[in-house]
Amino acid sequence: MFAPLYESIIGRAQKAGKVEINVHDIREYSKNKHKKCDDYPFGGGAGMVMMPQPVYDAITSIDPDHKALRIYTSPRGQTFSQQKVCELSKRDNLLILCGHYEGLDDRIIKLCIDEEISIGDFVLTGGELPAMVMADAVCRYVSGVIAEESLSEESFASGLLEYPQYTRPQEFMGEKVPDVLVSGNHAEVDKWRRERSLEITKERRPDLLDK
Amino acid sequence: MFAPLYESIIGRAQKAGKVEINVHDIREYSKNKHKKCDDYPFGGGAGMVMMPQPVYDAITSIDPDHKALRIYTSPRGQTFSQQKVCELSKRDNLLILCGHYEGLDDRIIKLCIDEEISIGDFVLTGGELPAMVMADAVCRYVSGVIAEESLSEESFASGLLEYPQYTRPQEFMGEKVPDVLVSGNHAEVDKWRRERSLEITKERRPDLLDK
Repeated sequence: MFAPLYESIIGRAQKAGKVEINVHDIREYSKNKHKKCDDYPFGGGAGMVMMPQPVYDAITSIDPDHKALRIYTSPRGQTFSQQKVCELSKRDNLLILCGHYEGLDDRIIKLCIDEEISIGDFVLTGGELPAMVMADAVCRYVSGVIAEESLSEESFASGLLEYPQYTRPQEFMGEKVPDVLVSGNHAEVDKWRRERSLEITKERRPDLLDK
Repeated sequence: MFAPLYESIIGRAQKAGKVEINVHDIREYSKNKHKKCDDYPFGGGAGMVMMPQPVYDAITSIDPDHKALRIYTSPRGQTFSQQKVCELSKRDNLLILCGHYEGLDDRIIKLCIDEEISIGDFVLTGGELPAMVMADAVCRYVSGVIAEESLSEESFASGLLEYPQYTRPQEFMGEKVPDVLVSGNHAEVDKWRRERSLEITKERRPDLLDK
């Protein structure tokens, strides 16, 4: 399930020792003889709820002194954003608890969790993908994982969406690269990019301009 | 990288023939002898841009008659939401192009893509995790993948965040399950849950109430 964290940029960052990600199986902490981790909800309803004991024991074993910022991936959480990425990337340790089944016993949130974070207004089969999304976004912001210049030019860094990019060939299927980009005039290129960023943001996400 | 799509609920849905997901490697479509798929951006700047040829050939080989709705995962796209999930789940075929590197040659978007979708206002190392998030959300909405009752009770289905859930034991680390949930009075349970949903939504996401 967590294979993406060992591939590509994040995989290389782990191998280079820039970041370290450990995956823990909550089931291993279950005191039930069948390693059961979920049970029926009190009050009835569809689906199963994660039991408090295995989750509590997992969290307190992995982070006994509460050094980590403890996050729970939940549609009820605050919405994840690039600002949150910057904030989380400054922490030494993050612990991300993945939701699954219908939900988690609410007492675990009260007893163990610092922040509930949602990656968006949609529902997934589990919290594993959101946890990997958070890990990916935060790890790429850790110093040395990707080039600093890339961080400053990307979408949201300046509060704007990114300008369009082009590479060779100069003409493809009858579509040409804008002349200014092959002019060699760096000031004009910068101006054109800034204008396109503003234009795209204004058209697609005027809410970002308000912020 | 795409291992999560073969695990858990989506993995089982694929095995049961409810949904089918095929992963294609763009590199295989490169006509370059080194299977190169990226090149420097026109106009300069950090990072590499995906070349048009391999992407164009991949899309037109996989979906020659343009039967699929073609999506590109991009921070510049419309924001993914549960409403979008419902809409996409009605389509027979979806093709999701994952962004990577600094971006994609913009002509590909003009020539091949129907919709640009963003999972949120944050930047990731690639479009693979967003593509899996979209696939997961859409697949779980396909008939037979998960229980119908679960779909109707979850966050966003009613426009509200979900009420808190509890399971056994009735008391854990001094924290008790609310009395109403063990009362056996279903009308009272429903009322309590509806009130909690409203309360949580009002407190955390008043914007959802406006919608």
